[in-house]
Amino acid sequence: MGLTTADLKEQMLWAGKVLVECGQDDFTRGHISVRTPDDPSLFFMKPHSVGLDEITLENILTINLDGDVVAGTARRHSEVYIHSEIFKVRPDVHCVLHTHPPYAIALSASKRPLLAYSQPGALFHNALGIYDDTINLIRSEAMGAGVAKALGPHRAVLLKNHGAVTVGATIAETVVGMIMLENAAMIQMITEAAGEARPLFPDADIEKLKNDISRLEQFGINFDYLVRRVRRKS
Amino acid sequence: MGLTTADLKEQMLWAGKVLVECGQDDFTRGHISVRTPDDPSLFFMKPHSVGLDEITLENILTINLDGDVVAGTARRHSEVYIHSEIFKVRPDVHCVLHTHPPYAIALSASKRPLLAYSQPGALFHNALGIYDDTINLIRSEAMGAGVAKALGPHRAVLLKNHGAVTVGATIAETVVGMIMLENAAMIQMITEAAGEARPLFPDADIEKLKNDISRLEQFGINFDYLVRRVRRKS
Amino acid sequence: MGLTTADLKEQMLWAGKVLVECGQDDFTRGHISVRTPDDPSLFFMKPHSVGLDEITLENILTINLDGDVVAGTARRHSEVYIHSEIFKVRPDVHCVLHTHPPYAIALSASKRPLLAYSQPGALFHNALGIYDDTINLIRSEAMGAGVAKALGPHRAVLLKNHGAVTVGATIAETVVGMIMLENAAMIQMITEAAGEARPLFPDADIEKLKNDISRLEQFGINFDYLVRRVRRKS
Amino acid sequence: MGLTTADLKEQMLWAGKVLVECGQDDFTRGHISVRTPDDPSLFFMKPHSVGLDEITLENILTINLDGDVVAGTARRHSEVYIHSEIFKVRPDVHCVLHTHPPYAIALSASKRPLLAYSQPGALFHNALGIYDDTINLIRSEAMGAGVAKALGPHRAVLLKNHGAVTVGATIAETVVGMIMLENAAMIQMITEAAGEARPLFPDADIEKLKNDISRLEQFGINFDYLVRRVRRKS
Repeated sequence: MGLTTADLKEQMLWAGKVLVECGQDDFTRGHISVRTPDDPSLFFMKPHSVGLDEITLENILTINLDGDVVAGTARRHSEVYIHSEIFKVRPDVHCVLHTHPPYAIALSASKRPLLAYSQPGALFHNALGIYDDTINLIRSEAMGAGVAKALGPHRAVLLKNHGAVTVGATIAETVVGMIMLENAAMIQMITEAAGEARPLFPDADIEKLKNDISRLEQFGINFDYLVRRVRRKS
Repeated sequence: MGLTTADLKEQMLWAGKVLVECGQDDFTRGHISVRTPDDPSLFFMKPHSVGLDEITLENILTINLDGDVVAGTARRHSEVYIHSEIFKVRPDVHCVLHTHPPYAIALSASKRPLLAYSQPGALFHNALGIYDDTINLIRSEAMGAGVAKALGPHRAVLLKNHGAVTVGATIAETVVGMIMLENAAMIQMITEAAGEARPLFPDADIEKLKNDISRLEQFGINFDYLVRRVRRKS
Repeated sequence: MGLTTADLKEQMLWAGKVLVECGQDDFTRGHISVRTPDDPSLFFMKPHSVGLDEITLENILTINLDGDVVAGTARRHSEVYIHSEIFKVRPDVHCVLHTHPPYAIALSASKRPLLAYSQPGALFHNALGIYDDTINLIRSEAMGAGVAKALGPHRAVLLKNHGAVTVGATIAETVVGMIMLENAAMIQMITEAAGEARPLFPDADIEKLKNDISRLEQFGINFDYLVRRVRRKS
Repeated sequence: MGLTTADLKEQMLWAGKVLVECGQDDFTRGHISVRTPDDPSLFFMKPHSVGLDEITLENILTINLDGDVVAGTARRHSEVYIHSEIFKVRPDVHCVLHTHPPYAIALSASKRPLLAYSQPGALFHNALGIYDDTINLIRSEAMGAGVAKALGPHRAVLLKNHGAVTVGATIAETVVGMIMLENAAMIQMITEAAGEARPLFPDADIEKLKNDISRLEQFGINFDYLVRRVRRKS
């Protein structure tokens, strides 16, 4: 990604503040991780016991693919295996994010797939896994591997009755992806609550849009905007 | 409209901040344009890569009816054709706005027209187009012409599973129209989610209200209020 | 009420700011009026063209029961007749408030009465009129009289597909009543959207609660709190 | 709990501000109480007539298990018996909280139990009482005893068509419990509004999660975070 450790940690810090600003917070729950720039078998991760908006350059942990802390003194999230197991099997992924957005959870609890009722919905067309092994916290390598398997080649996976995970080549793609996933789920739940929905557009039409809005540059532009917005308020 | 270039650009800038304050933002997506005061074949437009609340006197582009930038250095939105094609066929229109309001999108995804469950709903009675050629971005003249055709003589058009476009003789009419459209859609989705709705009022009754609340002066009064409100917070 | 003109105007000013803070705003729409302390055939009223949070000691109008302005230079709301006609037939009423709260409008559009799914719902048990002559603005004495008739002896009336009116012996009762009406409507719409509801409590039980929460002192305590809250933010 | 009177009163003060920040306010309604550190037959309680965010070290009352004020000059909430009667029969409980959260009220009005559609829902799996004797205020020892009976050994009880009560060994457990209850109810109401829901996870799976997220330390970590957040804004 061409970014230094300092750049990435700074981005993680702002990513956390953006997520809280966009309603992705749930107490101190939710966590974000980023591969280190020098060694793809290590990643930086938000520590336990603080909010997403309380990440600092000092409290970020460095963790290996076994889930062990190799640098940093803060407490580690027990769900670290979501991150380590995805990093193991997805070399294209440089950032993993897990949060508890309410509409995405409601959608995961329903019988229905995420549909392209909206452009953010199209982003996840045929591209959203569902992990439904358990409602429990992902506290073992085996469970983390289950999440990674349910994620497959996609950019997101719903953890049924629990939350969501998004991944990306950059922090921007991963964070913007999560906000778009919740937006898509909200629009779907509002649509379905009000009654029957019209036919969707043909798959080819939706796939074209998915492709158009999946460009890394666009995720960066939108993430940078959210960071500026949070900075102006702080 | 009797306004100078400086007046219009200043209004665009505040319109953008009002729209974000009223929940019409979607990252850096959404765009607003205004015909120039001297030449109706040119229009000012918000640039790409910034939020609606980041329009400045410096970054506004001047664009012609082919969608080409004739002044300004910022990046152009690829959906410029929504604006240029509407300006081509609607000489009465001096402002075009496109955003992604969630309830309006949910309504567009449903099988139902916007009904006069509320006074804002009456504003769009028999006056709301629906564009359903594609879920994709409006990135060609032909697609923009399709949106303009679906708009017809109305003040707004829903882009199915995508967003909404409002137009007006002034920035005020266009911006207030969009906020009222989303308010009307929200009330309708809440009403329909909770069950069957009572008979609507007779068409003539609704048409009378539509006429009463369509006066340009009233849109101006309400827009000016929203601008004062945003100014007090900034 | 024992309050001077200055006291009442000051209360109106804060009532307006409280209503905006509580989401009862709709651009510059919505209006509040209070009988003058010396002459029950006159009332003070918010002027046209400003928001509820922009009432000042200077811009408040004095109006008579014909709806004519007798003091003040600001523009009068055309719906003044909601106020004048209620004041004519309800000597117990010293304050009238009209706003456009979204859940109350959605409820008015539905086939259902407001039910005691919540304690605020109990406040309006067998005590909520419905005006369904028209969706239009209340711009004549005859229409105002229709609203007053639909209000009857109650503390509130829904204007179908339009909004709500609350009344009270004090500004506090009227403002708190409106906020409770919207809260009750919101809880009902959420309840009904999710499915069938349990049996309600017996009428006598609900009536006892209605009586207990209808004391003037309690409305005053709650209004004073909201004023303190708005003052702390300003 | 090892905390002094000063510590507990300070925590009550911040708990109130956290509850308002998290949307648990309803005018001056809602109240929180904490057993005194020296005498388990006495408790500190928020006074009447102020908001949850207006608790001060000076206005907190000391009350005995008969509901009588033994120290302090502020007015007592008439619903004091919710607190005194629970403290009588639940020696494990050191804090009692009563609020009026809208989704929890809507759920209480429905025919359905709280289900584990989400992790917060799992916290209340087979652990949520329902009090449905009356919609009225809990203004007698007998009624308070009824609430305590409906609570049973659980961490929360819904008061049908009225509100909710949570309890805990600490202020943190009690406050975080209420916020999680409302979050669980919101996710459930959204899920059910949109249609049929998928099978839930097996009871044993849900019970394991309930156990994992019921640790006192975790409630403390999350409460402390919310306090820091409110402090940063004030």
